This record gives sequence, C-alpha cells and structure tokens, in this order.
Amino acid sequence: MTSPKASHASVKADASQAFSHKLSSVADAVEAFLAERLGPETQAGEITRPVRLMEAMRHAVLGGGKRLRPFLAVETARMLGGSEAGALAAGSAIELVHCYSLVHDDMPAMDDDDMRRGKPTVHKAYDEATAILVGDALQTLAFEILADSAWQPDPSIRADLVLGLAKASGLGGMVGGQILDLGAEGRFGAVSLDVEDTLQLQAMKTGAILAFSVDAGALVGGATPDQRAALWRYGLALGQAFQIADDILDREASPEAMGKATGKDKDAGKATLVDRLGIDGARAECDRLVGICEEAVSAWGDKAQTLREAARFTVARKV
Amino acid sequence: MTSPKASHASVKADASQAFSHKLSSVADAVEAFLAERLGPETQAGEITRPVRLMEAMRHAVLGGGKRLRPFLAVETARMLGGSEAGALAAGSAIELVHCYSLVHDDMPAMDDDDMRRGKPTVHKAYDEATAILVGDALQTLAFEILADSAWQPDPSIRADLVLGLAKASGLGGMVGGQILDLGAEGRFGAVSLDVEDTLQLQAMKTGAILAFSVDAGALVGGATPDQRAALWRYGLALGQAFQIADDILDREASPEAMGKATGKDKDAGKATLVDRLGIDGARAECDRLVGICEEAVSAWGDKAQTLREAARFTVARKV
Repeated sequence: MTSPKASHASVKADASQAFSHKLSSVADAVEAFLAERLGPETQAGEITRPVRLMEAMRHAVLGGGKRLRPFLAVETARMLGGSEAGALAAGSAIELVHCYSLVHDDMPAMDDDDMRRGKPTVHKAYDEATAILVGDALQTLAFEILADSAWQPDPSIRADLVLGLAKASGLGGMVGGQILDLGAEGRFGAVSLDVEDTLQLQAMKTGAILAFSVDAGALVGGATPDQRAALWRYGLALGQAFQIADDILDREASPEAMGKATGKDKDAGKATLVDRLGIDGARAECDRLVGICEEAVSAWGDKAQTLREAARFTVARKV
Repeated sequence: MTSPKASHASVKADASQAFSHKLSSVADAVEAFLAERLGPETQAGEITRPVRLMEAMRHAVLGGGKRLRPFLAVETARMLGGSEAGALAAGSAIELVHCYSLVHDDMPAMDDDDMRRGKPTVHKAYDEATAILVGDALQTLAFEILADSAWQPDPSIRADLVLGLAKASGLGGMVGGQILDLGAEGRFGAVSLDVEDTLQLQAMKTGAILAFSVDAGALVGGATPDQRAALWRYGLALGQAFQIADDILDREASPEAMGKATGKDKDAGKATLVDRLGIDGARAECDRLVGICEEAVSAWGDKAQTLREAARFTVARKV
C-alpha cells in the first residue's frame, strides 16, 4: 500500500519525467535540424564549403546543451496551434546565436575557458582564428535560416523574426551585455556594479534572447497582439528567473557538474541578487518570478502546462 | 587652341571627376546614415547601450573607406528607378558586414594588422575582447537594418535582402573564403593553392559580397528576373575584376598609399592571376571583365553610365 505522501511524490516524479521527455524530444529535433544544416551531405551543388570551418562549427553546436531556447519557441508555437516545424527552425537559429556567443566568450581575450559542455572549447580544439570565424559564421547562419522561406512561408514573419533576433542579440542585447560583463571585471578601469546594474547587464546578456525565444514562438504561432504581450511578460520573467538561478548555481555547483569553470561571478566582484538576498532569498525571488510566468499564460489553461513546467524547470535545473 | 588629344584627355578627366563626385556623394550619405545608427543621440528610450562598445563600433565604421558596396547598391537601384533611401540602408548594412570582417581579420590571431585606413585597428585602439564584440555587434546591426520596415516596406524584399547577405557573407561566402585564405598561409598544414583555387577563394572572400551589393540594388529597385540575372552577371564580373586589381595593387602599391600592410599575398605563397599572367596580362584580364560588365548592363543604355564607370573605377583604383 502506498502512503498519500509517497503517491504525491510519485505524481511529481512522473510529471518531472514527462517534462524531461518533452525537453529531450525537442533537443533531439534541434540536433537533427542543425546536424543537417551543418552536415557535408547537404552541400552538393553549393559553393565548396571549407571543411575545417564546418567541422569546427559542428564541434561548437552539436552534441550538447539543453536547447532551452528552441524548446521555448517550439512549445509556445505548439500551444498557439502554430507550425512546429517553423518554430523548430526559428528556435534552432536562436540556438546558433547562443552557440556563437559561447565560442567567442570562451576565447582567451574574453573569459578564457578551456572546457565547455565537458569538451574542449573551439579555440582549444582548433585555434583562435578558427574560433573567431566559427562564431561569425554561426551568427550568419542563424539569420540565413530565419530568412529562408522553406521554414516560414510568410515573409513578414520572417522579417520580424530577423529583426527580433537582431535586437535581442546585438548592441542593446546579448553583445552589449557581454561587454558590460567584461567591464564589471574591471578590465576597462575600476568599476563596481550594484545589484540593479547587474540585473540590467543580465537582462541584456541572457534575458533578451530567452524572452525572444518565447516571442519567436508567438510570431510563428500567429499570436494576437494581446497574446504576444502576455507571452512577452512570460518570457521576461522566465529570463530573470533563469539569471538568478544561474547566480545560485554559480555559487553552489561544482565545475564537474557544470562542465565549465564556476564561481567566476563572485571572483569578479559583481554584486548579484544572491549577495543581497542570500541563497534562500534568491530562491524565493525565483519562485515569485515563476508565479508571474504562470499568471502570464493562465488564459491558455491546460494548454499552457508545458510552459508552466518550463518556468519551474528553469529555476530548478542543476546545470 | 587645344589639340584634339588634349581635349579628349580633358573630357576623360571631367568624366572621372564627375564619377568621383558621385562616389563621394554616396559615401557621405553612408557616413551620415551609419553615424546616426551608431550615434548616442539615437538611444533615448532604448535599453542603455554600452558606451565603450559603441565608441569602438564608430571607430571601426566611420571616417573611412570608399563605400564601394553601398555605391553599387544605390546606383543599381537608381538605374532601375527604385528607392534610393532603401538602397542606401541596404548598402550601409552591407558596409557594416564589410567593416566587421575587417575588424576580425585584423586581429592578432588572424592577419595581425596594426593599421587600417591610416588609423589603429580596433584591437590596437581598444583591446582584443572589444574587437571581437565590435565585429559581432556590427554583423548583428547589419541584419537589424535589413529587416527594418522603416527602410523597406515590402517584407518579402526585406527577407530576400537578409537571405542574400547571409549567403554572401557566411560559410559559403566571405567567412568561408577567409578561412581558406588562412589555410593558404599554411596555418593548418602545408597547402599549395593553384590559380583556380585562389580565384575560388577570392570569389568567396570578396566577390560574393560585391555581387550581392549589386543584387541588393536590384532587389530594392524591383528588377524583373531577367534584369536581376543580367545585373548578377555584372556583379560577378565586377567582383572578379576587383580581386585581380587587388592582387595588382598588393604587388605594386606602397603600404603608405594603401593605409595597411601590402605584399602579404605573395609572402603567403598563394598563386594569383598576377603570378600566371604577369602585371600586364592581369591588367588585360581586368579589361576583359570590365567588358563583360559593360555588356551586362547594355540594355539600360545611358542609364547604365554610372555602373559602367563603376566597373572601370574598380580596376583603375589606386587604393
């Protein structure tokens, strides 16, 4: 006989397992999509592509990562009844931008990391010149996929996807956040970031792309302006929760579990919400943000179940 | 009294002066367009942009260059009666990709150049991390401009511009050509490029973007498929002529005149058309390609005058 408590735990475990299954199912689809785009077998009839560059691009992209960004795009489009193939392509393009940023961020002139996802970073496995070009070509490929009519017949959605990804990943988003992050280390002169500065930096560096991942799903899924606004609120809160969870992980996790160096933020003397609120306080803030996510998608009822789980996963993840 | 020969020379000088005037007029418009996009005065209401990154982007982009790529886009659109403002935006986006490639190519891990257009390269004026991020953000900004409805109301043209620039500048174009060029220096093992290999490399590294610059003007100008094909022939031949002229310049010009190091291609042991045909033979090949350019635009008669001059300028330029 099973006690009520054990039964409750078992339901939770089942739900968690079901979510993991959905996550890995999208990750497999992303892997297959990107492997085909980066595979030599698709090149017939095209201009000869440089083998070394393609190999290094595959090294940078394939065989790793939770693929959270494509997952958000695909599940948002699915909830809206939109094209899952279109969302998979858009999400994979976003993943390429995420991967390019990791390749460049890992370089000696930037964060100087030797390992990523448990394998050597691109500049270690190849060389620095190749790493620069891999990042450049991955970014370009992302926009090429978004502009391709094969995945998205409506040209205005294609153009909106390109515009959205560019805004989320450029000067006012990811790249801007990255240089602020380098500045926070004191590279360009002494500087001290308070918690609000850090939150702003993180919103640019990682939050903008996460929020856009949801928005990409909304665009592909044909969301109304009101729906898009609600999903934008979801994406922003999820991005913030992700960042705080990252700070907690950075403080607590071992390098082995993360597959990369940890504890760097604290070394850099950048004040995070964990510094202000402590680990427990930061966890409570994560829970509050998950609540905002859940409220933002409440109008979709049961259909929003996966997005609700995604928000909870974002704060509970161990890597 | 003027001799017929002197009068002929004077007519040629006038024509050359008129062309120079057109070229610098578009260059001024490009400068103004990009200065506004990269200027702090446009940032009100947007997410705070990192000052150092913006300064370094302006350093990389403003105050230099012939702006040949935007010129080709603008003059092609003008010939077709299309929107010059739309072509200027598209051409400026292409120029940003050209500029980003220079910033990354100049880095120590790549060509290791200290000077560009008579001023310090970005990694010398700032640092390597900033140079990586400047290149990244310039590429992103290029796609942001192309996808912006402010410059191009038709979303299918916007999407086609994005797709065309991505194909011309990525793995199968500029970045692919750049890694083949590094390979030609023997970095990744001994290799010997024959003339055909070098032509292929150059077609990817610089030819694809030049041909796309013309194609961008054709897209903005609403060219018919036949017109677009003719203009594509023009752009391809112009790109080839540009490359051979570059090889001749690289062999002959002084570093002072070029504003950067010269003679590197020969040092790298990469066989060029100049090696096979000699300087005079290479010049004759340039003339043949200019003839192809002129033939390709012959259907436009007098309206194609500037594009004909642009082809002749491409092979006669001194920098």
